[in-house]
Amino acid sequence: MNYYFNTIINESFDSAILKVTESLKKEGFGIVSEIRMHEKFREKLGIDFRKYTILGACNPAYAYKAVTAEEKIGTMLPCNVVVIEKENGKTEVAAINPVASMMAVQNPALEGFGKEVAQILHEVIKSL
Amino acid sequence: MNYYFNTIINESFDSAILKVTESLKKEGFGIVSEIRMHEKFREKLGIDFRKYTILGACNPAYAYKAVTAEEKIGTMLPCNVVVIEKENGKTEVAAINPVASMMAVQNPALEGFGKEVAQILHEVIKSL
Repeated sequence: MNYYFNTIINESFDSAILKVTESLKKEGFGIVSEIRMHEKFREKLGIDFRKYTILGACNPAYAYKAVTAEEKIGTMLPCNVVVIEKENGKTEVAAINPVASMMAVQNPALEGFGKEVAQILHEVIKSL
Repeated sequence: MNYYFNTIINESFDSAILKVTESLKKEGFGIVSEIRMHEKFREKLGIDFRKYTILGACNPAYAYKAVTAEEKIGTMLPCNVVVIEKENGKTEVAAINPVASMMAVQNPALEGFGKEVAQILHEVIKSL
């Protein structure tokens, strides 16, 4: 099982971020964190790295169900979507597959909507 | 394998956040995101929930090694530490076990330092 869903699109880095943010919003997922890794690498390590941003996407209703069913599941939330600059003006967007990342969580109550969330994220990626 | 390392301490919620932030800093992990889930639940769902914050902890050198070895691993970064209010003035702190969350990632290059990071996070939790 692949641990992410991905696509490479003909959009600039910034426009890919806007596009995936918009698609996630339509599915009830807001962006609750944004980490610009390339800036961290430059600041902290003095290394130039291609543009690489980690967006934290959270659907409050699903998140509430998740922490109610499995209190420590917040160690795996929000659902991350990475946006990575590629060559020739293209950009890659990859979303976590929560079914894969939560393999080690032994809780049947999570399985059903883990699959639902995986399907939504997969659809979002396909829609870009 | 448990997917998190946890402890319950005799500290208020806010002071537990300060304490774990300080301990992580000593190990080179900065806090790059902070999501106050209880506020999201109140705002978006009108539900009162115990104080529950997700801290995103990132050691830039480890993160750089990780994305260089496995480009899409950002879908599983940063390493989350959750801080949860408990009864009687106690607070629970739980850090992700990256070896468990990355089980679905088939890349031997990640294994070595995945274990190193797991050990550091386990030590941080034990030190609180």
